[in-house]
Amino acid sequence: MKRKLAIVLLSGGMDSCVCAAIAHRQYELAFLHISYGQLTESQELNSFHKLSKFYKIEKLFICKIDSLRQIGGSSLTDSSISVEKGDLERQDIPNTYVPFRNAHFLSIATSWAEVIGAEFIFIGAVEEDSSGYPDCRPEYYQVFNQLIEVGTKSKPRVEIVTPVIKMSKKEIVTTGVQLGSPLHLTWSCYKDQDVACGKCDSCLLRKRGFQAAGVEDQTTYLL
Amino acid sequence: MKRKLAIVLLSGGMDSCVCAAIAHRQYELAFLHISYGQLTESQELNSFHKLSKFYKIEKLFICKIDSLRQIGGSSLTDSSISVEKGDLERQDIPNTYVPFRNAHFLSIATSWAEVIGAEFIFIGAVEEDSSGYPDCRPEYYQVFNQLIEVGTKSKPRVEIVTPVIKMSKKEIVTTGVQLGSPLHLTWSCYKDQDVACGKCDSCLLRKRGFQAAGVEDQTTYLL
Repeated sequence: MKRKLAIVLLSGGMDSCVCAAIAHRQYELAFLHISYGQLTESQELNSFHKLSKFYKIEKLFICKIDSLRQIGGSSLTDSSISVEKGDLERQDIPNTYVPFRNAHFLSIATSWAEVIGAEFIFIGAVEEDSSGYPDCRPEYYQVFNQLIEVGTKSKPRVEIVTPVIKMSKKEIVTTGVQLGSPLHLTWSCYKDQDVACGKCDSCLLRKRGFQAAGVEDQTTYLL
Repeated sequence: MKRKLAIVLLSGGMDSCVCAAIAHRQYELAFLHISYGQLTESQELNSFHKLSKFYKIEKLFICKIDSLRQIGGSSLTDSSISVEKGDLERQDIPNTYVPFRNAHFLSIATSWAEVIGAEFIFIGAVEEDSSGYPDCRPEYYQVFNQLIEVGTKSKPRVEIVTPVIKMSKKEIVTTGVQLGSPLHLTWSCYKDQDVACGKCDSCLLRKRGFQAAGVEDQTTYLL
């Protein structure tokens, strides 16, 4: 029987890579990468291509959008704002928050799903370790699924799936290893450098995850 | 007292023009135009500039996105699909439907609102005369407002406002005239021509609206 088609929003990071591994067990996959002017785009895209090759994906869509960079308001899209030093105990939302970013990604994914006939959209949002971003919480995705229900004409309707949203980085690493996910091909650092900085929130979360899982992280860090 | 800031999604058509006129009574305005590769872009943009000048708007954002054109699936974004002949009695969704289009527009508007501190986003969606598009119904905007509530960090939160959604084209024309809205500067036709075709759904709806309102339509039509 023909497998159902699922789109995976693949940044090139660890969380979306494990998402792809989970989706891969059940569905035919299409990979979507959004290039939105993030500072780390060249490294992310590099990882995206390696992961696409690893999973032998034929349906690829690299979508370039300029709107988030033009709108700005985040250290990830505006080079005049410095990425804050990592602080995993911080209570407020850090300046790496890109206003309403995931809605842009999910809108593109939903439109593409309607056209290619995909029934699922996998996204590697993680609540616990997500630095407090409002668009990484389960209720956000519940509401987005309602939006798809009222706002599309596809039958069966497209559904957003967030398989790692309740996982810690430790569980993500463990799950990735269990599923043979190529974590060594992923990129996490927020800085635009050839070598991961080792100091930003994203590097700190990654390091802590591998350490807690007792798995060797093959990433080279500056610090 | 300083007036609150509202973004108006302005296509250059009649509905969004009347929306702007309604918002203008109460708020300071910022105009947002999305250039998404629609066939009628040059006419729409032309109207947008005329309307911005008319209302003396300083905060303007013309946002170009290529994603909807790349995704295709609509006669409005893919020149290989012909715009269907207008049929206002049609029951199904016509091929001018751009999959999940308004979510792209509203996501851009919401991100921009978060950055510039706008509290409202006006959009000229119309249910009755909207050719059956799923993303022109009130429940769609109710859910989008929930999405903003769970997915942004702005306080006070941004709110989508749809003042013409329950109006007929007749009421839109009448309201526009009452508010001194420059309807003669707007563009409605779906075809990429210098002169409105007079035959597509959008032209038929416009003509019918002016006729029912007993107002002279200054548009020149081919037919």
